[in-house]
Amino acid sequence: MSLNVGQEAPFYWPIRVYYEDTDAGGVVYYANYLKFFERARTEWLRSLGFEQDVLRDEHGVIFVVSSVQIEYKHVIKFNEELRVSCRLTELSAATMNFHQVAERTFDGAVLSEATIRIVCVNAQNFKPKPIPNVLRSCCL
Amino acid sequence: MSLNVGQEAPFYWPIRVYYEDTDAGGVVYYANYLKFFERARTEWLRSLGFEQDVLRDEHGVIFVVSSVQIEYKHVIKFNEELRVSCRLTELSAATMNFHQVAERTFDGAVLSEATIRIVCVNAQNFKPKPIPNVLRSCCL
Amino acid sequence: MSLNVGQEAPFYWPIRVYYEDTDAGGVVYYANYLKFFERARTEWLRSLGFEQDVLRDEHGVIFVVSSVQIEYKHVIKFNEELRVSCRLTELSAATMNFHQVAERTFDGAVLSEATIRIVCVNAQNFKPKPIPNVLRSCCL
Amino acid sequence: MSLNVGQEAPFYWPIRVYYEDTDAGGVVYYANYLKFFERARTEWLRSLGFEQDVLRDEHGVIFVVSSVQIEYKHVIKFNEELRVSCRLTELSAATMNFHQVAERTFDGAVLSEATIRIVCVNAQNFKPKPIPNVLRSCCL
Repeated sequence: MSLNVGQEAPFYWPIRVYYEDTDAGGVVYYANYLKFFERARTEWLRSLGFEQDVLRDEHGVIFVVSSVQIEYKHVIKFNEELRVSCRLTELSAATMNFHQVAERTFDGAVLSEATIRIVCVNAQNFKPKPIPNVLRSCCL
Repeated sequence: MSLNVGQEAPFYWPIRVYYEDTDAGGVVYYANYLKFFERARTEWLRSLGFEQDVLRDEHGVIFVVSSVQIEYKHVIKFNEELRVSCRLTELSAATMNFHQVAERTFDGAVLSEATIRIVCVNAQNFKPKPIPNVLRSCCL
Repeated sequence: MSLNVGQEAPFYWPIRVYYEDTDAGGVVYYANYLKFFERARTEWLRSLGFEQDVLRDEHGVIFVVSSVQIEYKHVIKFNEELRVSCRLTELSAATMNFHQVAERTFDGAVLSEATIRIVCVNAQNFKPKPIPNVLRSCCL
Repeated sequence: MSLNVGQEAPFYWPIRVYYEDTDAGGVVYYANYLKFFERARTEWLRSLGFEQDVLRDEHGVIFVVSSVQIEYKHVIKFNEELRVSCRLTELSAATMNFHQVAERTFDGAVLSEATIRIVCVNAQNFKPKPIPNVLRSCCL
């Protein structure tokens, strides 16, 4: 059974654009938004009290991405600041769906928007494994 | 008018997995597939005789990604080899759609599969601009 | 004339280790320390009131690295936290020398230590150009 | 005992500059040369018949970088090509010293030049371990 999860306010994580994030077009390189989205998911988990290295060591699980749908809408330049939201939209036995938005901080312009599906897997063989109950109960 | 483009055989580009491509899970980091797909698109263009720096300098255009849909199916480890296909599936005035697959070389296992939409834009202001005719005519 | 600059306390910038920073060895990838050091230099400049995009737009200069000497002493793992120091040690017309240390936050273990030479250059042609006075006077 | 190793001709590995390698300055980002140098070392090892995943699985060792001294001399732009040399200059029980140069292919301009020290370590605990004899004998 898959549950729709109605979180009221999304979690936000601020990110500064350094040279490492940009490319010769003068803007953030498209693949780097996936790094930014992951930072926000990690910090969202941390804000709930979960550390991924502890989940791996105590429960034997890691989270892997199984699909991403992303639209790029505006570019952001070197030294500007963005913020990335993280909202859990669906939760089933071993998967979590997230809706994430990257916005330029100073004017709220949407830079990119993504739907990302995460699977909880065994850290050794990468086979799906139920999300630990301690985390599940926190997300419902 | 948007045309469906029926290329017979996809273009393939080989990629070796170095430490830089992996993460602490022991496999290629999910964002890096977007780098691999772009390498293959760049080399496909080059195989047709087009250099992106020349297109920028002579036609004032660069190509930016407007959307990506990607599914991750298998993982690939450090030091293994993959090959990435690049197939143009649709062409309109300023956009190109690609279907791209990353396969492990030794057994053909599909690692990830993506639909990627590219927009041709003015290199200065990032506004859509028609794909140069010399390139269009080559793709039809 | 080159001046030795005696700053009392170094500037520190905290950094969390995400998957993007690690490699298949399970630890931060060696090239990524150069990213971390640059983040700290950028934030040190910002703490003095200087934004690099403003320096580029108003003074026509950017900063490029001309040499790095780095020693790697300990490894740091996924999800751990480090802090990176930034101390200006020498200042001449167009160059700045920095001493930077990356330390694991929880125990102070030195992860890596570097001497980094920066040159102020013309943003168009990359030729050396004097450091803007407004910045120089702030560093002495 | 440490031996000076007199290789006649250096090994070269070609590298194309993609968007992923560049930054908003329009040139290859300084940290990325460390990736390029590592690709060349990996391919040099492969040219001698050694695969690092096999060395890890059969001998329990991996190679980590213990120090880098690098000078940056010229910049290289998007879509240009470089080649990276790899020359072993010193070999002791558990360490290897390399001299590596990155040159722009079309005119031979030296982009950067580095001395890099590698330590052979136990893959589990990162403690130094002798370089496997099968590899040592190949390098002398």
